[in-house]
Amino acid sequence: MKVIVLSNVLEDKHRELIDKTALEAGADVCYVNSEADIPSDFSDAEVLYGFGMDTAKRSKSLKWLCVPSAGVDYLMKPGTFANEDCILTNSSGAYGVTIAEHMIAVSLMMMRGLDRAYKNSLSGFWDLNRPSQKSLKDCRITVLGTGDIGTSFAVRARAFEPRSLVGICRSGKASSLYDSAHKIDELDAILPSTDLLAMSLPDTPETRDILSAERIALMPSGSFIVNVGRGSAIDEDALREALESGHIAGAALDVFKTEPLPSDSPLWNTKNLLITPHVAGNLTLEHTLDMNVSMFCEDLLLYASGQPLNHVVDRKRGY
Amino acid sequence: MKVIVLSNVLEDKHRELIDKTALEAGADVCYVNSEADIPSDFSDAEVLYGFGMDTAKRSKSLKWLCVPSAGVDYLMKPGTFANEDCILTNSSGAYGVTIAEHMIAVSLMMMRGLDRAYKNSLSGFWDLNRPSQKSLKDCRITVLGTGDIGTSFAVRARAFEPRSLVGICRSGKASSLYDSAHKIDELDAILPSTDLLAMSLPDTPETRDILSAERIALMPSGSFIVNVGRGSAIDEDALREALESGHIAGAALDVFKTEPLPSDSPLWNTKNLLITPHVAGNLTLEHTLDMNVSMFCEDLLLYASGQPLNHVVDRKRGY
Repeated sequence: MKVIVLSNVLEDKHRELIDKTALEAGADVCYVNSEADIPSDFSDAEVLYGFGMDTAKRSKSLKWLCVPSAGVDYLMKPGTFANEDCILTNSSGAYGVTIAEHMIAVSLMMMRGLDRAYKNSLSGFWDLNRPSQKSLKDCRITVLGTGDIGTSFAVRARAFEPRSLVGICRSGKASSLYDSAHKIDELDAILPSTDLLAMSLPDTPETRDILSAERIALMPSGSFIVNVGRGSAIDEDALREALESGHIAGAALDVFKTEPLPSDSPLWNTKNLLITPHVAGNLTLEHTLDMNVSMFCEDLLLYASGQPLNHVVDRKRGY
Repeated sequence: MKVIVLSNVLEDKHRELIDKTALEAGADVCYVNSEADIPSDFSDAEVLYGFGMDTAKRSKSLKWLCVPSAGVDYLMKPGTFANEDCILTNSSGAYGVTIAEHMIAVSLMMMRGLDRAYKNSLSGFWDLNRPSQKSLKDCRITVLGTGDIGTSFAVRARAFEPRSLVGICRSGKASSLYDSAHKIDELDAILPSTDLLAMSLPDTPETRDILSAERIALMPSGSFIVNVGRGSAIDEDALREALESGHIAGAALDVFKTEPLPSDSPLWNTKNLLITPHVAGNLTLEHTLDMNVSMFCEDLLLYASGQPLNHVVDRKRGY
């Protein structure tokens, strides 16, 4: 079995783990930094771990593509796979810690006015003004999308003693960590009692523009929004208006309908909008990369022994 | 019994609670926004709740001063109280939540490079560079000062799954939340295995310059420092050098030897130094003000019935 590992961020310890696993799995591994570097004797490889979109599109021999991302929306278009039966796995589960830390950080930055304090500090301004602050303590938090990311956030948010911590997802079933869990069709009933809406949804037809102008209007005046899932989930124009009017007190967006966010986007200058360039989850945190590699290795052993893989994407469902 | 309540931030609900308590305690309450507004018939008041430093200095009839701050260093100089037997209480216990939230926020901002990401966003720059990140997950955290603030931080930090959470305080005894607790004289032994040093110490002769150049050098390369106690605890010149050299990867200071931080201070332009203008704990968070007022009211009932107060400052110890 030929396996291509496509990455420019792996450290020695990761290669050692992959080599050890490959030996056990009876696989030959070829490490490359880019798809252009794949040698001809690996052009018929059965397995690719990495962002191997060109290979997937071209190679009929590829039987399993494991991508290091959690989101897989970019792999859902027809024509993505030359081999329609190619198994797709993602790395959902590796990003919970890092994205949850981002979510807590930006929530507190917004609610405590730390963005403003930091901005002032850049010009050496000791601001004696003390704007009112909000807190995660006694906050009514709604987690929209209760997968690994949402729930890793909820675990951390719980320690801040929120008044409520409600989970919303497709099934309406979530960890007992939440005070209650609901189906997405109950969202409208829950938004009016949401002080902080924490969104970590995949991009699917069901989630597109799920946070519409009407739903933003349902949220209490002075509430906050964090989005780390996919930018498609929010009506960005409606959010911009709600921020400018002050109805929404703050939003922190790490994902956008168009990325990179165009330099002429009005979002850059929107009041109380904290923009980060899709950095909540990436492989620069050692823990994330470690998890990512070990999840692939677990699946490689399962694959070699013909068992079902742990992290298979349901390509019909889209995540 | 005459009681002066000196504050310009109280809401109706707070005055209602104070009025109700005063009735029970048999006290006459006078609300003023500043000491200059104290009417002559209250110049001999027995109790003052607020920052009544002028009154304390002038009035021999003042028997109890309750300040809304946690730190009381500014009240330790000789001549502060006209009545040397005046009881001093502080509001230590009201600030744990708000300061702990600040500590978590700035720790994550530094460790995840969110300060840099936010700075870029101010000029509409979508930075595709992904600098390496650090995490509270698997972090070796040392909490220096395990009072209400340090321990409120530790409660929240625990949810982020640190590798270790060590408490250091005068007594060497701290909540079982910590993996271990140590006396201050063990600090030198603990610093070499500290990735994040979270400082929340009062200003006392014992804590002044406790984080010296020598101790900063004991910390691992790439470690982080947060200080929310008093600025006197850190040798600021030594910290600046350690930040510029990269030995310390980041520091977040909310308190300084001189406040406001002078506009010509070199700290403003120090690499990887996140400066906030003493905002971690103030009364703008509703929860903090609520706690503050209810702590005073509890003590007012005790005072009226001749019992020891809950929040008395040991003026010899200095906190």
